[in-house]
Amino acid sequence: MRQAGRYLPEYRAMRERFDFLDLCKNPNAAAEVTLQPIDRLGVDAAILFADILLIVEPLGVGLEFARGEGPVIHRPVRAEDAVARLKPIDVESAVPFVFETVRIVRRALQDRVPLIGFAGAPFTVASYLVEGGPSRDYLHTKRLMYEEPAAWRRLMEILADALARYLNGQIEAGAQAVQLFDSWVGVLSPDDYRAFVLPHTHAVIRALTPGVPVIHFGTGTAALLPAMREAGGDVIGLDWRVDLDTAWATVGHDVAVQGNLDPAALLAPLAVMREKAKAILARAGGRPGHIFNLGHGVLPQTPAFHVKALVDLVHELSSR
Amino acid sequence: MRQAGRYLPEYRAMRERFDFLDLCKNPNAAAEVTLQPIDRLGVDAAILFADILLIVEPLGVGLEFARGEGPVIHRPVRAEDAVARLKPIDVESAVPFVFETVRIVRRALQDRVPLIGFAGAPFTVASYLVEGGPSRDYLHTKRLMYEEPAAWRRLMEILADALARYLNGQIEAGAQAVQLFDSWVGVLSPDDYRAFVLPHTHAVIRALTPGVPVIHFGTGTAALLPAMREAGGDVIGLDWRVDLDTAWATVGHDVAVQGNLDPAALLAPLAVMREKAKAILARAGGRPGHIFNLGHGVLPQTPAFHVKALVDLVHELSSR
Repeated sequence: MRQAGRYLPEYRAMRERFDFLDLCKNPNAAAEVTLQPIDRLGVDAAILFADILLIVEPLGVGLEFARGEGPVIHRPVRAEDAVARLKPIDVESAVPFVFETVRIVRRALQDRVPLIGFAGAPFTVASYLVEGGPSRDYLHTKRLMYEEPAAWRRLMEILADALARYLNGQIEAGAQAVQLFDSWVGVLSPDDYRAFVLPHTHAVIRALTPGVPVIHFGTGTAALLPAMREAGGDVIGLDWRVDLDTAWATVGHDVAVQGNLDPAALLAPLAVMREKAKAILARAGGRPGHIFNLGHGVLPQTPAFHVKALVDLVHELSSR
Repeated sequence: MRQAGRYLPEYRAMRERFDFLDLCKNPNAAAEVTLQPIDRLGVDAAILFADILLIVEPLGVGLEFARGEGPVIHRPVRAEDAVARLKPIDVESAVPFVFETVRIVRRALQDRVPLIGFAGAPFTVASYLVEGGPSRDYLHTKRLMYEEPAAWRRLMEILADALARYLNGQIEAGAQAVQLFDSWVGVLSPDDYRAFVLPHTHAVIRALTPGVPVIHFGTGTAALLPAMREAGGDVIGLDWRVDLDTAWATVGHDVAVQGNLDPAALLAPLAVMREKAKAILARAGGRPGHIFNLGHGVLPQTPAFHVKALVDLVHELSSR
C-alpha cells in the first residue's frame, strides 16, 4: 500500500508547499515523499509516490485533482464516440517525472530496501475515466460494458497497452517490483470480471519485463481471487475481508500473498492492533511467501506511531 | 429486496404526497406502496414497505430522514455513556403503524402471494446509530468495537432484543416470512464478524417465532457466508459478487439461497439482462431451494418494464 499520506506530519508539510499534482510531477519532492516513511517506519520496501491517473492525463479527458475531493474527470468517457476521441498516450513524454522520481529514489536508497513501482489496473483506471470521479455503484462503467462492449474492449486495450509500457518504464528506471492496483474491481460479479476485465489485466502482466515480481491487488475480491490469480501476478494482494489462510488456499500456495490487516485496526488501542496482527501471522503460519501488509491504504486519521509499532511488531514476530 | 421504490412512477406519486417517514407511519399508504409492485410486476411475494430505522426512533438519538440524503442520526452513539443514555424501546408503542400495515396488506392480498416482513440486523442498525448516517469506512463503528467492547456488546444486546420483538410482532400481525438485512456487514473481517456480530444476529434469529422462514441477507459477504450461516437463517441471501453455485456449496445445500443478479444488470439492454438471469438459473441448476432475486435493491434509475421483463423471464424459465 502507499505509505506516504496525510497521517504523516512530514507529508502534510510537503502538501502545504505543493498541490497534489505538482507534488507528483516534481521528481525531487515526490522522491522525498517516497522516502519519508522509510526512516520513520522501518518498513522493508519503499513504494513510489505517484497517482494512478497520471498516466491518463494525455488522453485529453480533463483530469483535475480538486482539493479534498479526489480526482475529477471533466469529460468522462461513457460511449463509443468518446473512446474514439481519446488522444494516444505517449508514455515517455507523458510521465517522464515518474521515471525520474524512480531514479532519484533508487540512488537515495542505495539498496537499503527495494523500491516498488505501481500502476492502476485497467478496470480501476477505466472506472475513473467512465465515472468521472469516485462512484458508489459504478453504473456508468457497467452500462458501457453491457451496452457497448466493443467500446469497452477498445478502452481497456488502450489502457492495458499504456499501463504495461508505464510499468516497464518504471522497471527500466529502477523499480525492483511492481504492484497493479485494481482497487475497485470488487464491484463486479465473477462472471463480469472474467468477461470484461481478466483478459486485459492479463495482457498487462504478460507484457511486463520478465523477472520482476508483480503484486496484483484489489479490494472486495473474496470471490474474484481465483480469476485474479488466473489474470496473473507473483503475489496476490488480499484485503481484510477474507481469512488469509482460506484465501491463500484458494489462490494456491504456489503464489505469494500480501495482506491483510484492516486499516481500521491501526486506529484501535495498540493491544487490540497487536492481537489482530498476530492473528494474521498465525494464519500465515510462518509459510514463506507471506508479505505482511494492510488490506488497503493507511487511513488519514491513523496515529503515525501506531504504524511504527505495527512494523516493529511484525519484525519481532517474524524473526522468531 | 424492497420492491417499492423510486423506479416506480406510482411510488414517486406517493412520495409527492408523503414525506418518507410519514409514508412509513401511515398504514394505509404504506400498505398501498407494499402492494403496488405486486400487480405491476407479478412477483411471487410482497415485501413490507418500511424502514430499518423506524424501530430505533424511541432510543432518542434524533433520527431524521433528510430529503435526498437518507437517514441522519443527530446524536450518534459512539461511547459507553451514549449507550447508557439510550431510552428503552417499547416495541408495541414504537411501531404500531408497521404492525397495522402488515394486517392491511395481508387482508388486501387475500393469500394471492405471501407477505415477507423485515428488519435490519443488529450490526447494520448499530452502524447507522454509531456513524450517524451512511459511511464509507465505518471507522466510528469499528472504534467502538475495538475500544469499548463492553459498550458495543450492550448496544448490540439492546438492538437484538428489540429487533427480535419487532420481527415477532410482524409475524403475529401476519408476516409469513421475515428477512434480516445485514446490508453493511461486508465491511468487517471474518474474525470481527465472529467476535462482534455473530452472537447477536444469532440471538435475534433464535428468538423468532418457530416455523416462520427466516432470510438472512448481507452484501459484500463472500468470505462471511459460513459464519452468517452459523448465525442462522433458513435462506441465505447472496449479493451479486459471488458465483451462486460456489456460494451455495459454501453455505451448504441444506439451506436455501436467494439471489443474485447485479441490480445494474436491470439497466442493461434486455438481451444482456436475460443472459445474466439465465446464467444465474443455470448455476442454481434447478435445485429446489433457490429463490431468484437481485443481489441488492432495485436502483432508482431502473426502467420498471425491465423489472417486469425479468420477473416474466424467471417465471418462464423456472416453469420448464
